[in-house]
Amino acid sequence: MEEFMYLRKAQYHETDQMGFIHHSNYIKWMEEARVAFMDQIGMGYAEVEKAGVVSPVTAVSVEYKRPVRFSEEVGIQVSVLSYSGVRLELEYQFWLMPERELCTTAVSKHCFLKEGKIVSLKKQLAELDQILSSVR
Amino acid sequence: MEEFMYLRKAQYHETDQMGFIHHSNYIKWMEEARVAFMDQIGMGYAEVEKAGVVSPVTAVSVEYKRPVRFSEEVGIQVSVLSYSGVRLELEYQFWLMPERELCTTAVSKHCFLKEGKIVSLKKQLAELDQILSSVR
Amino acid sequence: MEEFMYLRKAQYHETDQMGFIHHSNYIKWMEEARVAFMDQIGMGYAEVEKAGVVSPVTAVSVEYKRPVRFSEEVGIQVSVLSYSGVRLELEYQFWLMPERELCTTAVSKHCFLKEGKIVSLKKQLAELDQILSSVR
Amino acid sequence: MEEFMYLRKAQYHETDQMGFIHHSNYIKWMEEARVAFMDQIGMGYAEVEKAGVVSPVTAVSVEYKRPVRFSEEVGIQVSVLSYSGVRLELEYQFWLMPERELCTTAVSKHCFLKEGKIVSLKKQLAELDQILSSVR
Repeated sequence: MEEFMYLRKAQYHETDQMGFIHHSNYIKWMEEARVAFMDQIGMGYAEVEKAGVVSPVTAVSVEYKRPVRFSEEVGIQVSVLSYSGVRLELEYQFWLMPERELCTTAVSKHCFLKEGKIVSLKKQLAELDQILSSVR
Repeated sequence: MEEFMYLRKAQYHETDQMGFIHHSNYIKWMEEARVAFMDQIGMGYAEVEKAGVVSPVTAVSVEYKRPVRFSEEVGIQVSVLSYSGVRLELEYQFWLMPERELCTTAVSKHCFLKEGKIVSLKKQLAELDQILSSVR
Repeated sequence: MEEFMYLRKAQYHETDQMGFIHHSNYIKWMEEARVAFMDQIGMGYAEVEKAGVVSPVTAVSVEYKRPVRFSEEVGIQVSVLSYSGVRLELEYQFWLMPERELCTTAVSKHCFLKEGKIVSLKKQLAELDQILSSVR
Repeated sequence: MEEFMYLRKAQYHETDQMGFIHHSNYIKWMEEARVAFMDQIGMGYAEVEKAGVVSPVTAVSVEYKRPVRFSEEVGIQVSVLSYSGVRLELEYQFWLMPERELCTTAVSKHCFLKEGKIVSLKKQLAELDQILSSVR
């Protein structure tokens, strides 16, 4: 697969009084990048939800290495760290653009639910299962 | 009715790089105060939604008179400006506490929907209709 | 001036449990569109702040005509409604794309501050004063 | 020290279209609880910032065990996991109230900066250093 990168401009409403982007916004940016990543690998959220499957976040971890300022552009790479059919781990690298300086790394963990119960993607969404297995 | 006031401490994550609470947060505070107000007049959101009725915001307007800083406490008064059975207008006054200095005024407008259609509260939720008519 | 339109995809983290984009986010989108508009007319925020001038929001009003859903794209037009040298009013039209259906209209009001005091742009930032006078 | 617990009602504007509180809000709640915790141990943010010291977040990790719904009340316990004079780790437990069911656990890591440089609290804020050493 070609390299995937989600570009995002840091907004004024995301700053805090320290003069940087507030650290809570990175969790939102991870989600935005994840949604774009799923679109690119061919299984957008809308399609997944149509199949009655939701994929809640079970854990996140973020390491802030360098702050981001208003109007700076960040490029977020997403990759599959591990995938078991039942659990998915995604890894994120945040790069300050255009210099491509690493500013943040993060991981999110997900399970898959249908009608409130944990399911295996292999059975519920074989197509997405194959894609996630192949992009590892 | 006794005076209603919703107390809210301004949070660090709500500040922006100007050093004040970002103006978008007032829309959230209005909602928090509105939810508390509905609870107090005896028709909490949960009860209203159980009746299958939702009350979307159709308009808001806010006048910012004085900025609010991190860790300051704001008291928000809510009152019914007009109520027609079909449309509701609420008025908000934001006071810096404990000095009680007026910092912001606002208005929100609402309609009532059941199964996606505009309904009259008189028919759908007579109890709330009576309450809103009496607190005007 | 060519037509200005800021394109923005509605994000999952901006939805609420009614299934629509929460109404507070429109205030943030207005700011994003305003920042992009200022960039386009040639006076980006960074440049204005370098001159020691900030432009706080003194009032906003929003009329919600049609809700927006996750992953829909909105185009936001910004135009100068009035400008007096001391006060600025901007108007916003939100269009659901690509159908270009009007979903929201809004207005924001601004003053200009230097060292905490209201100033006239004519004296403090003649260049921006000229631009704002000409794009009316 | 007496048990510390920060109480927080889940707000409507914090829900997402899955019908639960969006996972990004927990990072904000951690900050709110941390601010209240610092107040209680006798070194509020305002006092620390007066000494010219800021304490940015260098990492966060969150494990979501059970979702939270609109209008539910959450009690957040904060405790010092480790403190070296230069680095601080805080631990958070989120309890659904009043049943006191554990719904989320989290950790945040912090350093201390003065004029943009990492400093030792022992030298810069001996009083806070002593407090943090004793509440471990």
